[in-house]
Amino acid sequence: MKIKRIAHLGIAVKDLEAPKKLYSETLGLKLKNEAVVAAQKVKVSFIQVGESNLELLLPTQPDSPVGKFLETKGEGFHHLALEVEDIHAAVAELKAAGVRLIDETPREGAHGDLVAFIHPKATYGLLVELVQSAH
Amino acid sequence: MKIKRIAHLGIAVKDLEAPKKLYSETLGLKLKNEAVVAAQKVKVSFIQVGESNLELLLPTQPDSPVGKFLETKGEGFHHLALEVEDIHAAVAELKAAGVRLIDETPREGAHGDLVAFIHPKATYGLLVELVQSAH
Repeated sequence: MKIKRIAHLGIAVKDLEAPKKLYSETLGLKLKNEAVVAAQKVKVSFIQVGESNLELLLPTQPDSPVGKFLETKGEGFHHLALEVEDIHAAVAELKAAGVRLIDETPREGAHGDLVAFIHPKATYGLLVELVQSAH
Repeated sequence: MKIKRIAHLGIAVKDLEAPKKLYSETLGLKLKNEAVVAAQKVKVSFIQVGESNLELLLPTQPDSPVGKFLETKGEGFHHLALEVEDIHAAVAELKAAGVRLIDETPREGAHGDLVAFIHPKATYGLLVELVQSAH
């Protein structure tokens, strides 16, 4: 498959405002946009770094994947998102190679992107999301 | 300060060969180079993703920062490295802003780069390294 870039780095946080202030005012990065991903019960805030982004992930409810992550592991790195040209082809390729997936079928992420998570057991502890941009 | 790009994503691993095979053969990414950073007791392997890299971190001794990390947290994300134009100016700026640092003075990293780690308490659980490239 063709991976084009790091689309974003998902970071679990307990509050959006303080980290946004750190990354924009102290580190000089550009705040981009925010979105609620209802299916994942999460509000996300994107911060641009070169061709990539940091994606702050704030759960909107405690009984959500990111809410449970915060409870057990605390704030910090959550996942790495890699942009692919064709996510259906990429997922088919991984299945054929016997790579364990969380999403066997791509589903909708933020901004109408199509996403699929690889199981962290298959990637040596790193949670990796494949993303096909809607734009 | 001016952050140019994500330089790399440091990933702690217990073995280099299997993850290198996954990222290159299965995911189609390009293996770049390897280096031993004696001061950190670590062997690193760089894999290119767009303008950024994954940096696999294999400890050369268990009593090393990454060795201890693996023992307590297991394999996975270790740190995010951001490239800055002028690391001395960046560190001075962070000190002036009262941001807690691990390295108050930049030190040598892989490939002769200058690096300084920010304390993860200051960055909401994310270990962030600033890097000034030697090239």
